[in-house]
Amino acid sequence: MSIIDLPVSASPVDVVPLKYGVVVYQGFQALDVFGPLDALNSLSLAYPLQLYVIAETLEPVTTKPPKGLGNPAADFGQSILPTHTFETAPAVDVLIVPGGIGNRVPENISKAIDYIARVYSTLKFLITVCTGSAIAAQAGVLDGKRATTNKRAWSRTIQLRPQVEWVAHARWVVDGKIWTSSGVSAGIDIIFAFMGEAYGEEVATMIANFLEYERHTDSNWDPYADLYGIN
Amino acid sequence: MSIIDLPVSASPVDVVPLKYGVVVYQGFQALDVFGPLDALNSLSLAYPLQLYVIAETLEPVTTKPPKGLGNPAADFGQSILPTHTFETAPAVDVLIVPGGIGNRVPENISKAIDYIARVYSTLKFLITVCTGSAIAAQAGVLDGKRATTNKRAWSRTIQLRPQVEWVAHARWVVDGKIWTSSGVSAGIDIIFAFMGEAYGEEVATMIANFLEYERHTDSNWDPYADLYGIN
Repeated sequence: MSIIDLPVSASPVDVVPLKYGVVVYQGFQALDVFGPLDALNSLSLAYPLQLYVIAETLEPVTTKPPKGLGNPAADFGQSILPTHTFETAPAVDVLIVPGGIGNRVPENISKAIDYIARVYSTLKFLITVCTGSAIAAQAGVLDGKRATTNKRAWSRTIQLRPQVEWVAHARWVVDGKIWTSSGVSAGIDIIFAFMGEAYGEEVATMIANFLEYERHTDSNWDPYADLYGIN
Repeated sequence: MSIIDLPVSASPVDVVPLKYGVVVYQGFQALDVFGPLDALNSLSLAYPLQLYVIAETLEPVTTKPPKGLGNPAADFGQSILPTHTFETAPAVDVLIVPGGIGNRVPENISKAIDYIARVYSTLKFLITVCTGSAIAAQAGVLDGKRATTNKRAWSRTIQLRPQVEWVAHARWVVDGKIWTSSGVSAGIDIIFAFMGEAYGEEVATMIANFLEYERHTDSNWDPYADLYGIN
């Protein structure tokens, strides 16, 4: 029983990326991870995709911000289970790096930075969502590349690595194998743009319709750059 | 240090819903859960919200479809950790029920159905996303109420409970304390509509901008009803 049937224009299975990894750390932004992954969960009904959820340890990783950054009166978060650590993760074709308040704490992401620096050359694609680009940037892999990030966290993020050609006005930016998106929900648009390129436009449209998601298909659409006054 | 400051128009903390529960089961749709929850995660930076993740047991719950429904060649999913079982969950103000392929297997959701039937009268609000309405409908709590659901799964869902006044063309529907949305990403729009009503429109706008999310604010917007030919 097949829930999704691929259109004839779909890229054949032997030429598409199949192995995915996602980096998680305490205080990651849930939608940065689960926006792209839900599109890929759905795509995996048709393609034999694999996913590794990669963290510093195999302990559950919560979306709750690290101590001092969250609201101490709230108790609201979700915990995801890693499948691998930065030491045990198999090689992947595509690595997804989410943003989140948690990456404001350097020791919370130092191992993720090391991991990205170590595996970057082996990746076919690196996709960052929101301030996930701050983590990739600190790994040095965005140096000299065009990249974007969350617009509300713009100034804090770009000063972390001025060697990056930061693009202020963009829903997402592609430079070679590096795909970087703007804040949070922009991760959904970048994954569909990526899916269109890697698996076929009809495939991306089919999965977006499956999620009843109206895509922003223009990578230059970015009212939030204006809203946060960073043009 | 406060990451989000509420506008003066925000509803005061003593009149807003503070306790949330979300039901999860094997093969839930990730974005059905994490779209609404990420908006609420962000809102919890400003309001003292609490969340209980509720399942049949405390074992991790995967998004992977139950045997026979997924793609056997794929290995792609995420596991979330419940905080409570249907027996131990504290009372909540708002219960969120997601959809997903997993609810096509009756024994996979029978305990969730019993739980919803048992606690419904104690809820201030019930929010369903996608085929989450199929679960609520089977608990009998939607009988005689206006409700919507996923448009691709329309005919399979509505025949489960003809006593519901199913609304074919809607991004979401509100009937009393029951808020039901269309498929997957419609969960993000319904949670912002709910947030606007319960916490204030400026609050909803602020959080949507925080997520760089362009809302559909018209509950009648629904190109997917047309696409799947169910008008």
